[in-house]
Amino acid sequence: MTATKGLEGVVATTSGISSIIDDTLTYVGYNIDDLTENASFEEIIYLLWHGKLPTQSELNELKQQLTEESKLPKEVLDHFKMYPIGDVHPMAALRSAVSLLGLYDDEADVMDEGANYRKAIRLQAKMPAIVAAFARVRKGLEPVEPRSDLSFAANFLYMLNGTEPDAIAVEAIDKALILHADHELNASTFTARVCVATLSDVYSGVTSAIGALKGPLHGGANEQVMKMLTEIGSVDRVDSVIREKLANKEKIMGFGHRVYRKGDPRAKHLREMSSKLTGLTGEPHWYEMSTKIEEIVTSEKGLPPNVDFYSASVYHSLGIDHDLFTPIFAVSRVSGWLAHILEQYANNRLIRPRAQYTGPGMQKYVPINERN
Amino acid sequence: MTATKGLEGVVATTSGISSIIDDTLTYVGYNIDDLTENASFEEIIYLLWHGKLPTQSELNELKQQLTEESKLPKEVLDHFKMYPIGDVHPMAALRSAVSLLGLYDDEADVMDEGANYRKAIRLQAKMPAIVAAFARVRKGLEPVEPRSDLSFAANFLYMLNGTEPDAIAVEAIDKALILHADHELNASTFTARVCVATLSDVYSGVTSAIGALKGPLHGGANEQVMKMLTEIGSVDRVDSVIREKLANKEKIMGFGHRVYRKGDPRAKHLREMSSKLTGLTGEPHWYEMSTKIEEIVTSEKGLPPNVDFYSASVYHSLGIDHDLFTPIFAVSRVSGWLAHILEQYANNRLIRPRAQYTGPGMQKYVPINERN
Repeated sequence: MTATKGLEGVVATTSGISSIIDDTLTYVGYNIDDLTENASFEEIIYLLWHGKLPTQSELNELKQQLTEESKLPKEVLDHFKMYPIGDVHPMAALRSAVSLLGLYDDEADVMDEGANYRKAIRLQAKMPAIVAAFARVRKGLEPVEPRSDLSFAANFLYMLNGTEPDAIAVEAIDKALILHADHELNASTFTARVCVATLSDVYSGVTSAIGALKGPLHGGANEQVMKMLTEIGSVDRVDSVIREKLANKEKIMGFGHRVYRKGDPRAKHLREMSSKLTGLTGEPHWYEMSTKIEEIVTSEKGLPPNVDFYSASVYHSLGIDHDLFTPIFAVSRVSGWLAHILEQYANNRLIRPRAQYTGPGMQKYVPINERN
Repeated sequence: MTATKGLEGVVATTSGISSIIDDTLTYVGYNIDDLTENASFEEIIYLLWHGKLPTQSELNELKQQLTEESKLPKEVLDHFKMYPIGDVHPMAALRSAVSLLGLYDDEADVMDEGANYRKAIRLQAKMPAIVAAFARVRKGLEPVEPRSDLSFAANFLYMLNGTEPDAIAVEAIDKALILHADHELNASTFTARVCVATLSDVYSGVTSAIGALKGPLHGGANEQVMKMLTEIGSVDRVDSVIREKLANKEKIMGFGHRVYRKGDPRAKHLREMSSKLTGLTGEPHWYEMSTKIEEIVTSEKGLPPNVDFYSASVYHSLGIDHDLFTPIFAVSRVSGWLAHILEQYANNRLIRPRAQYTGPGMQKYVPINERN
């Protein structure tokens, strides 16, 4: 038995949700480029969960369900107020809040298809409300209740800022949500599938996925990119800082990907948004720094930017706190996690691989006073 | 690309912690039979984390650290009091409490080896305190603080019941903790490794593992066994109920295992304890029912009992609430989760397999009013 480290190239499951073939990402057969240009995030949620794009009445029904389920239980809001705010990692707060939500859902452990779908709606609806409420409570502000007349993307920004967002911001967030919604067996989705393949509940699956997304080798990367941009600070410093990092063999966050060879098809959409938004905010240097970094890293290392790289300057331009970048990723990716959890339940088998043992051979227990 | 469903037989990592070879389970090369006869659970924790059995002074130091770290932050206890007690699954409570603990640990996101080891100590120490406190608070009782003069097993029972346990109960729990401590790449351990391979933190890893253990195809099985025994109710009903279940192709919980072929080497120890303890409590029918079920299932289906089967009657005989059986499993298995998390960090690679896409082929986005 020889271990395939990181399970690289190992096919762990079949799935009808998304595919990455020849550097093209599709959701249920639709090219991500096509969807980003034309669809809304709510259509994507429906597509991932039902395997088809919704009709107008199906979309209306989903939107209504999402609005109805978006209010948080008072008890979960009260929990936020007990957090040691200030020091808390927003992803740790999100992980805890989602786990707690499960305690207040009477159907948490009901395992039939209908109940699991209802839990998917509840979690998709409540995730943006959790992120927004946490972001406000830690600043001493009251949470803002969602509005039934706004889209998913608009509502998220509204709950975050307490004011109605402009059309450009809504469009940017909507596209970012579409681009992050699913990505085949990425690490957090795989965590969720391994978790629920024990027939554990939806809340356990999403909680575990949030824990995985938190890591800097996964969702945590977009925040790290912004940290790097902030440290560099100006376009004229890019060349020296990046070349020094490369010389020191430091990892440049936001570049390269396990699965893509030529490039991440999502990056170009975020690049375009970054160009537009940094211009509108009068801070084009974030975009200029980013393109210069891309130029150097691509020519020196042959690594193209991934989805995380330009999302950093996009979210920053929208006035979003840097440590909320990964939670926004979660607000989108939960749609994919839920699709994969429902797919796992529909055709389940315990996911239980083996380890290649590399420890000491057989040894005999020695009484404690004879050990050294 | 063809999927290996459930990753059966796929080697996902190397590991020096435990091995299952020819139906023999070893921890760091020590046969589980040898350890169950001779060691204490604290020695096992040390063994799993350090790859060697401790000297007396090393063991004393570990015991002292575990005692020092076993007190729960007041805020986490306060959280328990806010839970909708009564309806809450103890594993969901444990999942939430461990996630919350991370918010109160200043080192939660410090990723060096020293900090990660300190977090391992804290989690190992606090898990029994969480389970015991939850069990008491939901009955309207005050949590009991741990005592520094008791062993890990004794302290757990003491915190649970508020009275000093007798030697037989301590021995039974100590052996049960040893037997459940680690089990190679079981589903919860694998969940934890996939989660932290993104370089996410220890709390995220353990939270995700608790979520996985909760499932009835994994840790949840011991509670299901007790439910079955209770439903059967008496020895004379075993034959008809079990044969009917088999005829209906119902799964009999507590039998068979993905990895073991001839039998689970842990079962015999729990069988022996079950015999002894059910005799002492004057309820030998739990043991007699169990052996009769074993007889039928083994002869009819060729499936031997696994670790979960006799642990049910053991825990019941110790007066433990049935829905706490899986949390007790977690109190033990967290030692293995932590060993695997530390091992993953020491030689990390993102765990990111592929999916075989089985959905629709390429399709073109259709405007919503043209869909059907």
